[in-house]
Amino acid sequence: MTITITAFDRSPDGGRGLARDTRVRWALEEVAQPYDVRLVTFKAMKEPAHLAIHPFGQIPTYEEGGLALFETGAIVLHIAHRFAGLLPDDANARARAVAWMFAAVNTVEPPILELMTAKILENDKPWTKERLPLVLDRMRDRLKQLSTRLGDAEWLDGAFSAGDLMMVSVILRARASGVLDEFPNLAAYLARGEARPAYKRAFEAQRVVNTRP
Amino acid sequence: MTITITAFDRSPDGGRGLARDTRVRWALEEVAQPYDVRLVTFKAMKEPAHLAIHPFGQIPTYEEGGLALFETGAIVLHIAHRFAGLLPDDANARARAVAWMFAAVNTVEPPILELMTAKILENDKPWTKERLPLVLDRMRDRLKQLSTRLGDAEWLDGAFSAGDLMMVSVILRARASGVLDEFPNLAAYLARGEARPAYKRAFEAQRVVNTRP
Repeated sequence: MTITITAFDRSPDGGRGLARDTRVRWALEEVAQPYDVRLVTFKAMKEPAHLAIHPFGQIPTYEEGGLALFETGAIVLHIAHRFAGLLPDDANARARAVAWMFAAVNTVEPPILELMTAKILENDKPWTKERLPLVLDRMRDRLKQLSTRLGDAEWLDGAFSAGDLMMVSVILRARASGVLDEFPNLAAYLARGEARPAYKRAFEAQRVVNTRP
Repeated sequence: MTITITAFDRSPDGGRGLARDTRVRWALEEVAQPYDVRLVTFKAMKEPAHLAIHPFGQIPTYEEGGLALFETGAIVLHIAHRFAGLLPDDANARARAVAWMFAAVNTVEPPILELMTAKILENDKPWTKERLPLVLDRMRDRLKQLSTRLGDAEWLDGAFSAGDLMMVSVILRARASGVLDEFPNLAAYLARGEARPAYKRAFEAQRVVNTRP
């Protein structure tokens, strides 16, 4: 069955790999599954046809036969359950990998999203200059805890898993702030993720779309 | 094997059910599994013994035999995989229920967390009065999309699932703002969740802990 995902017709990040379709592309590359991409404009994202498969009017989505999924974490987990390569065989280790997936999106990403919101949606507000250091500190606190746990390990829990895929994708969004560089082991962890051949293929695929004339 | 979870020694919400151990208690009640609770003080949460099982120094955690898990979404999903009652049998319907779990924590909860952050951590800041309406609007936008999708359905995707358990638990945190009342179908959805016998038992269990002398 053909797998079709959706992505921005043109990502606001100009192809830097920060849009969430990159996470799904990466997962599909890790498990060596081909996929089609349907590009969606900002206008189309808010229309009934897209809202029918994504109630929050965002990308990515995942369609395969009779299944239509939204929400990146769920799509990556579905891919990880369906094809070998993203989750360990041992049941307890699998559960721990899933814990890291949720930690990425529910513990580490919220303060990073808050920073993005402050910089993008509240950039012109009078309070933003004074407020930004507080937002950065909250993000720094979380990254520090992550850094402490990772230590000098290569991945979060033994072999590379969907948990690392999600965590690397999340902390990638913190890089532009410069705060990631305060934690050399996290910067190196991110670099290890980006060096994976599957990530490189995923990144290149979205880059080509988002930098076309 | 005995299941042991952790919870606040005394929750900052005074037993209103907003702390995340309520979600795990609810899941365990839905699948009719007994559990022990280890109460953790704020001080103990930041000490090595607790950080070993929760790298971000929070509650809840879940221990069963050789497995130690953190992150509420992952714990609830583990419970849902391990015991019957929280996920449909059909594979596609299961994947969609998991999508709603991730949607709860990664799409609907972040703007609610942002509101809690503004009210708790930035309550004394000079910008908060002017900024709060923006934060409320962002939360309102998400709740509106959720309301539109739910329509007059009882649950998000057919029968009650772990997706509803997580979504109800997340929007519960928006109730104090009053915004939830702008969406009567969401308020009714929340009420249906709270009316479940398993929820009532979970709520009462945490209430007793958090209102003891």
